Amino acid sequence: MVMMWNEIMEQPAVMARCFEKNKNTVAEIVKQAKNQNIKLIYIAARGTSDHAAVYARYVFEITMGIPVALAAPSVFTVYGRQPDLSNALVIGISQSGKAADVLEVLKAANRQGALTVSITNFEDSPMAAEAKYHLFCDAGLEKSVAATKTFTSQIYLLARLAAEWTNDNKLHGELSALPGQMAKALEIADIIKEKAERYRYMEHCFVLSRGVNYSIALEAALKIQETTYVKAKAYATSDFYHGPFAMIERNVPVILFAPEGPTLPYGKEMALKLADAGAELVVVSNNRELLDMGRSSFEIPYTDNDIISPFFNVAVAQMFACRLALARSLDPDKPRSLSKVTITK
Amino acid sequence: MVMMWNEIMEQPAVMARCFEKNKNTVAEIVKQAKNQNIKLIYIAARGTSDHAAVYARYVFEITMGIPVALAAPSVFTVYGRQPDLSNALVIGISQSGKAADVLEVLKAANRQGALTVSITNFEDSPMAAEAKYHLFCDAGLEKSVAATKTFTSQIYLLARLAAEWTNDNKLHGELSALPGQMAKALEIADIIKEKAERYRYMEHCFVLSRGVNYSIALEAALKIQETTYVKAKAYATSDFYHGPFAMIERNVPVILFAPEGPTLPYGKEMALKLADAGAELVVVSNNRELLDMGRSSFEIPYTDNDIISPFFNVAVAQMFACRLALARSLDPDKPRSLSKVTITK
Repeated sequence: MVMMWNEIMEQPAVMARCFEKNKNTVAEIVKQAKNQNIKLIYIAARGTSDHAAVYARYVFEITMGIPVALAAPSVFTVYGRQPDLSNALVIGISQSGKAADVLEVLKAANRQGALTVSITNFEDSPMAAEAKYHLFCDAGLEKSVAATKTFTSQIYLLARLAAEWTNDNKLHGELSALPGQMAKALEIADIIKEKAERYRYMEHCFVLSRGVNYSIALEAALKIQETTYVKAKAYATSDFYHGPFAMIERNVPVILFAPEGPTLPYGKEMALKLADAGAELVVVSNNRELLDMGRSSFEIPYTDNDIISPFFNVAVAQMFACRLALARSLDPDKPRSLSKVTITK
Repeated sequence: MVMMWNEIMEQPAVMARCFEKNKNTVAEIVKQAKNQNIKLIYIAARGTSDHAAVYARYVFEITMGIPVALAAPSVFTVYGRQPDLSNALVIGISQSGKAADVLEVLKAANRQGALTVSITNFEDSPMAAEAKYHLFCDAGLEKSVAATKTFTSQIYLLARLAAEWTNDNKLHGELSALPGQMAKALEIADIIKEKAERYRYMEHCFVLSRGVNYSIALEAALKIQETTYVKAKAYATSDFYHGPFAMIERNVPVILFAPEGPTLPYGKEMALKLADAGAELVVVSNNRELLDMGRSSFEIPYTDNDIISPFFNVAVAQMFACRLALARSLDPDKPRSLSKVTITK
């Protein structure tokens, strides 16, 4: 069996354990941040980890009410400048903990006396050493080039940080229940395997969502790109109306993540407009009406909380990418031209 | 002649006049921002205007050293929350000044006592009325659905704001000289017309750059999408190594903006890697070595300032998109499924 598939299936176990070791650190970060009267959260990451940053970008602003900026590391590395981060909580995210440009952002932030946190899957990595606090993904070695379980542990820890910050015991409870529900989300594996066949010769597709789940649209597109070489492109539905919609033609496949919750009306509106334009809809949802609109549909467990649904959505995206790669006779564990650790400067 | 083409050609004149009326307002904004001890710049925009925001995101951090966050308007509209913007300069950008979600961000910012600025092409628009200060694009009525001259006036005003903030008379001088150079950049119109023929049957392409010019890669991809329906996808070269590179196969067209300046080594590195992978390179540059690497090459006027080169690069992108649309027997002024004013909530 491919490593990627195994690692997808490990996710409930990873989520069940990854908070335990980090619990005290998360509480300490929140205490320290409140003492320092943090006014800005600044997050640096690349690739899949950057999609975890996009998840946090929404979740932090929605729950904590603190503005979030996503770093452009080139400001630090290419241009040799650094914005004033003295009042900021600066978070660097990287599976390997070796992302050179993200490390530069952490170093600059430390020099300025910012509160720095790294999230990596290696306790002895350069980023773990540099940041004041390290959150450890504890995902076990991830062997597939396509990151899966490290991504979910990243967003799990970020969600826990938000719950701790806002003292939200309901959210903590939902996160504690999540590993069990995640196992349930993975139960549609056979359906995904069967449906993936249909997309064997797909050359490109769009991946859409809105709000927090836009981060999952980005991650789904990247997983599809790197494992199947299909030209997948993610958009927030709101941005899709501003130009990209012109690319929609009959039969173009569109994957739509449209769960119950505050974004549901926008998901419905986009689904109707796409159906009108003749696109082929692949729907990932827990809403019956939307599921019924898909030529292919993948049902996720019920939640109307946009902090929770991304976990189910990304599980579907990962399984779909992996199965589609296999349907295309590709090895999802070893994408051409890619290596596991990417050190961009 | 198509309106889009005419409006592209109007850009030197628009740039020559658009600062005059705004000069005092720009100075006033800077004075006020410094009095209020602004710690964060928060920019809200959609579509093409959002690419102007990405331009500002880099330019402001590089020149002014203040962290910049790009708003996710859905935090305000879909989730009904608002981050603490009391110490922020909040800028809303929209051609029409009617973008409903951007307007919501400005309203929330005003309620919190933030310093608010709008940049629009309509002095009597809702966004102009809402913001404390309005910067007027003064581009004349833009009739084509594909925005061109309003984009350049937006980034021109943003660059002027950075020059004023940092008291950078050299940059002010370069910006004053820009309309003349922009006219020169437009002189390759015939070359672009001729080369566009080659891409008549192109179905997809990638558009790459790094640093400030990443904003132009995004805008180039959008212009191509909306006027030609080609599935164009923009990436920062740094992100392209993290997964998307796997999609590169022989003969896939890649448009690379790689001007002289701090990002040149990264442009060269990517060009070599793409050539190795057999991609077809379309190079936009003012560096001879890079121009020689392109199957098609478009030369821009000399500068090694990444605040300036985006103007030349976007002119090439606009002309290329317009000419490619015409080569494909499409009307670039009236893209299918799009309207000039997009009001997303």
